[in-house]
Amino acid sequence: MGAGIVTRLMAAGHQVTGWNRSPDKAAPLVRAGMHWADSPRAAASKSEIVFSIVTDAAAVRAVALGGDGILAGLRREGIYLDMSTIAPDRSRDVAAEFANAGRIMLDAPISGSPVTLSQGKASIMVGGDRAAFERAKPVLLSIGASATYIGESGLAAQMKLAVNLLLMVEVIAFCEGVAMAEKGGVSREVALEAMLNSVAASPVLGYRGPFILEGKMPEVPLADVNLQQKDMLLVLELARRLGTPAPLAAAANEMMNACRGMGLDHNDFVIAHEAYRRLGGQSK
Amino acid sequence: MGAGIVTRLMAAGHQVTGWNRSPDKAAPLVRAGMHWADSPRAAASKSEIVFSIVTDAAAVRAVALGGDGILAGLRREGIYLDMSTIAPDRSRDVAAEFANAGRIMLDAPISGSPVTLSQGKASIMVGGDRAAFERAKPVLLSIGASATYIGESGLAAQMKLAVNLLLMVEVIAFCEGVAMAEKGGVSREVALEAMLNSVAASPVLGYRGPFILEGKMPEVPLADVNLQQKDMLLVLELARRLGTPAPLAAAANEMMNACRGMGLDHNDFVIAHEAYRRLGGQSK
Repeated sequence: MGAGIVTRLMAAGHQVTGWNRSPDKAAPLVRAGMHWADSPRAAASKSEIVFSIVTDAAAVRAVALGGDGILAGLRREGIYLDMSTIAPDRSRDVAAEFANAGRIMLDAPISGSPVTLSQGKASIMVGGDRAAFERAKPVLLSIGASATYIGESGLAAQMKLAVNLLLMVEVIAFCEGVAMAEKGGVSREVALEAMLNSVAASPVLGYRGPFILEGKMPEVPLADVNLQQKDMLLVLELARRLGTPAPLAAAANEMMNACRGMGLDHNDFVIAHEAYRRLGGQSK
Repeated sequence: MGAGIVTRLMAAGHQVTGWNRSPDKAAPLVRAGMHWADSPRAAASKSEIVFSIVTDAAAVRAVALGGDGILAGLRREGIYLDMSTIAPDRSRDVAAEFANAGRIMLDAPISGSPVTLSQGKASIMVGGDRAAFERAKPVLLSIGASATYIGESGLAAQMKLAVNLLLMVEVIAFCEGVAMAEKGGVSREVALEAMLNSVAASPVLGYRGPFILEGKMPEVPLADVNLQQKDMLLVLELARRLGTPAPLAAAANEMMNACRGMGLDHNDFVIAHEAYRRLGGQSK
């Protein structure tokens, strides 16, 4: 996602200075005009607005709070936005350290995939200082179609998990329904078309659904089973901590366990369709 | 839904002859130009294409196979399409009786709601004789935006259940996610907007989601908890008979039990949001 965000920022005319743990991955962006920084600190010191998007809360802490991290370089008037999907409380912990140092950090998770991002259709949710959100908004709108202020620090991180709950359950329910239709004799192609013509069809089903057609599963998944289950566990942990039941998310998570048990976890998580087929005794 | 279908047929210029168990309900349609028939048999005898849409399989049998039913009146070249949501095997039973009598019955369930139907956005799935489907297709396309041939008799009824599985789980997962976001401090309005701006948003969430806003629950539900649970039980029974697991549908069905237990069943089934709120100890 990071590369896609940089590409959209540069396409909108912004000067971008970037850092990545693996410089090789950044090479195409540098060739396309991105300035290279040797550390998050160096990138932050040269920027008005600083973004991070990494895998988990430990990585956010490392890039934000480490000796060569963003906080060490961020200007007084700078704004730091973390776009990672992490637990709200972990995001609030980092924001508190920025506040203690007189700096601003916003949680700004992005909803979408590399596909919708490149189409300019991603949506960004923001939590934290509202005035800082308003200052950053024009830049956010050059990344995605919408930038919505959700509330105080951590609430955007939390909203992202609630949106992901819907998304994950929806994709797996789609798999459950197609597998049921197939088991009863409807061809997979026809079942897919009927699902995507229905009032329950959504953009994520539109771009992910076709992966289940013969030979169409992408070699590089949008999000594989392990990555998606990481988000699911954040959802279930948040629900547990808040004391709000999430029985559908829990059932969907069990299907991710089944995908891993069947050795399917290197695929995009819409591979749940194949897990359902096997659970239903369906062979090719 | 029946009244909406008649309205669209007449708007497209078709002559419609109709019957309803409660003539009072048909009175507005008669005033708008529908010819009244005293029985399904009488309606069938005056029509090239005959539709039925009723609540369950027993009602389909009564209207199709009763002494004054459609089979008794259907012309040799006529086509009977049942649009009800019923179990595939029950639909096949009725189709077999028509075939034995040298007549054609297709299963033609309609996906959508009175809202999408009136907008011309409903989709119709058809199972049974393909040539009869092709003959009926132009008329079907005056009812909805798409008419898709699914396969042999009963397969459209089955596909409808698979689509409803997705739809029901999706709507209830939406309720689960909004309730979680609210419990954590996001306002309901903001949570709804974030959900509907996400890649998981679909038409059904677009028109049903806003019902959960304060004071917006419709007095006349699109489908109340009891009616929706009837479809869910058809889904779960089909999954059981086929031997294909449906853990997400099963979890969603438990939430319908909870809605009934809490006395919320007279509402549209998106009232699951309120059930989640109560399960999470949330008060106004």
